[in-house]
Amino acid sequence: MSFAKKTLFIVLDGLGDRPIQYFGGLTPLEVARTPNISALVEKGACGLLDVIGVGVRPGSDTGHISLLGYDPHAQYTGRGPLEAVGLGVHLADGELAFRANFATVNSQGVVVDRRAGRIDSAKPLEAALNSINVEGVKCHFKAGAQHRGVLIFRPQKGMLLSDKISNVDSNAQGVKISLCRPLDKSPEAAFTADAVNQYLSKASKLLLKHPLNKTRVKNKLMPATGIIVRGAGVAPHFEQFKEKFGLRAAAVSHTGVYTGVAGLMGFDILPLKNATGRGDTDLDEKARVAAGALSKYDFVFLHIKGTDVFGHDGDYVGKRNFIERIDTAFSKFSDLNDTLVVITADHSTPCEMKNHSADAVPLLMAGPGVRKDAIRKFGERDCGRGGLGRLKGADLMPEILNIMARTPMYGS
Amino acid sequence: MSFAKKTLFIVLDGLGDRPIQYFGGLTPLEVARTPNISALVEKGACGLLDVIGVGVRPGSDTGHISLLGYDPHAQYTGRGPLEAVGLGVHLADGELAFRANFATVNSQGVVVDRRAGRIDSAKPLEAALNSINVEGVKCHFKAGAQHRGVLIFRPQKGMLLSDKISNVDSNAQGVKISLCRPLDKSPEAAFTADAVNQYLSKASKLLLKHPLNKTRVKNKLMPATGIIVRGAGVAPHFEQFKEKFGLRAAAVSHTGVYTGVAGLMGFDILPLKNATGRGDTDLDEKARVAAGALSKYDFVFLHIKGTDVFGHDGDYVGKRNFIERIDTAFSKFSDLNDTLVVITADHSTPCEMKNHSADAVPLLMAGPGVRKDAIRKFGERDCGRGGLGRLKGADLMPEILNIMARTPMYGS
Repeated sequence: MSFAKKTLFIVLDGLGDRPIQYFGGLTPLEVARTPNISALVEKGACGLLDVIGVGVRPGSDTGHISLLGYDPHAQYTGRGPLEAVGLGVHLADGELAFRANFATVNSQGVVVDRRAGRIDSAKPLEAALNSINVEGVKCHFKAGAQHRGVLIFRPQKGMLLSDKISNVDSNAQGVKISLCRPLDKSPEAAFTADAVNQYLSKASKLLLKHPLNKTRVKNKLMPATGIIVRGAGVAPHFEQFKEKFGLRAAAVSHTGVYTGVAGLMGFDILPLKNATGRGDTDLDEKARVAAGALSKYDFVFLHIKGTDVFGHDGDYVGKRNFIERIDTAFSKFSDLNDTLVVITADHSTPCEMKNHSADAVPLLMAGPGVRKDAIRKFGERDCGRGGLGRLKGADLMPEILNIMARTPMYGS
Repeated sequence: MSFAKKTLFIVLDGLGDRPIQYFGGLTPLEVARTPNISALVEKGACGLLDVIGVGVRPGSDTGHISLLGYDPHAQYTGRGPLEAVGLGVHLADGELAFRANFATVNSQGVVVDRRAGRIDSAKPLEAALNSINVEGVKCHFKAGAQHRGVLIFRPQKGMLLSDKISNVDSNAQGVKISLCRPLDKSPEAAFTADAVNQYLSKASKLLLKHPLNKTRVKNKLMPATGIIVRGAGVAPHFEQFKEKFGLRAAAVSHTGVYTGVAGLMGFDILPLKNATGRGDTDLDEKARVAAGALSKYDFVFLHIKGTDVFGHDGDYVGKRNFIERIDTAFSKFSDLNDTLVVITADHSTPCEMKNHSADAVPLLMAGPGVRKDAIRKFGERDCGRGGLGRLKGADLMPEILNIMARTPMYGS
């Protein structure tokens, strides 16, 4: 077979890293034992990918938009709406969505922990939050995995909301919680910022006295005593993936911005029973569902979040071990026929930075029609010597369509 | 000498390929014995070239426009006019040219073979075709190599033609011949499409009873019983190569779109006695004429078509053997002084796909001033490890001008 009929597109979130002294200057990926991925490398070609552009530090949202063949500069309206769609919320025109974190905020209003100790589930707090009323806005809160959630503002008759407001989540700990400020002089921005502050203040009061938090404090766990929001935006409009690329597409991913991006692009979101969006997720289930979906879909997007979580936590041993667990689950991908397997990342999350970086991410393409190169191990430096060279995110879907022999000729 | 005074620019049409199982996973170029090209590789640097862009599948026309330093998105008006100029036809403003194939069409109107069995020469059919009259249009047919030809429509006084019409050649066999349809609602498009259908219908009747076809049928060869056209367009306007790059330029190429592109750019087209545009072309003559032209010209474009023909036919052994014959002819280029030798392709034509692909093509630059790298063999994967990295077609002429020390400084 000289070309691939299907594509399994795997994003290991935040996979790329920097040299770790503890690993003798290797990265978690380079040091990990990955026999199954190496078997794919044997059959494929590697390269490095600047997900948006050289030196552009992607968010998970903009990174995924770019990886999936869309221009984030043209399409991105903020993280909030993508997270909301990822949690199954429908957004009508004019409605505003925020990404929300449950956080531990102390009595002086200082953010002690941006993720409330990575609380296991904040679902029991949802009902209290949905009892909050703010004049002129219908507020809706939906809890996601762990500390994550989305806040939706639906303007009441005659009111207008604006996304020109500041983030309350300043991505910092040990600092006082910020107030939401309007970013322009419009009455809509002033009204929206005020509504956010009202909502968060009321939420704080309800959360403080919530039984779940009392139990957490008793168990010496960080309580979820505040909500911090960011990424306010309206729903973006994506040309449907099927129309744009001619591929029937499905996503295998936990809730979150990845699922939101894929959902807005028209991917079918396949159900998972045991996904957690953390290092304890059921990798076998994900790999099994993804492999199975290849019989029905042309393009299957498999997203695994844990790599990024370990990066943010600075846990390089955990990141390496999780990569090895991923590799074990990927034994299911060793004998896919007629399928192009792509493995890459939406950005680097170097453990010693505990945050996203713009470092180029490793890229592997393996399957029929690929000019396999001499690389033998999937790693940042190995990929830098690979046959694909250094590509940009915008090159990736065209390169995939070419391997699938689905590229229209330009000229004749 | 630290820079090149002349450039020999060699395009091996459709050279790039994908791994072939029969060759143990190597490509025809990788498996070919090419001692003379290897001697150039020893002195040069290699890379991979995305002729138009990553994942963009070039036609021969758009590919050559890009390789020669022009932007096809700005310049391309269709294949027809380039082919026409390549056959020495002058196109005035308002005149429309089509690329035409002689095809074998059966009595049910099904295209059995798009190339009439790669008919040796259709020249004897020309006179019959030039007897056809269509109201409002002066029709002119010129046969090219093998099954190839061009059809020119010259509007009669007061009439206007449009290129907004569909192709009759659908690039498929075993399907019914298409009618030409207008692609917009203008009266010019309707008139032009109708004129095309009239012409092709009359051509079909004349070809069916032509003595050449009766002889072909008797000899069990595919008859040229129909004409299929595509790539309708008016002549494009290119800034002359001499003005744009300051180089006196000549082309050594058989008739066809390559010659048309070079002709419109102002290249002198050097005469060849024995070129055929196939695998049986006189490679020695071409190499001799090209090497000789370097005494008079700064930039000599040598085009060899056969590699692409073998690719379209899926004949990987033939492609490999032809590459080896090319290499033998290139012994003439082993002792060129002060000359930069560039070898590349306008696109890949993987034998197992029998069509163009967007796979990056190999690139070699050898001569004085080049930072030679460690690559030893000209091949797709070797070039992927080369010192030039992965470039785009638009980078090539600037890179050549730099090696020739002819680049104006930007800044001071």
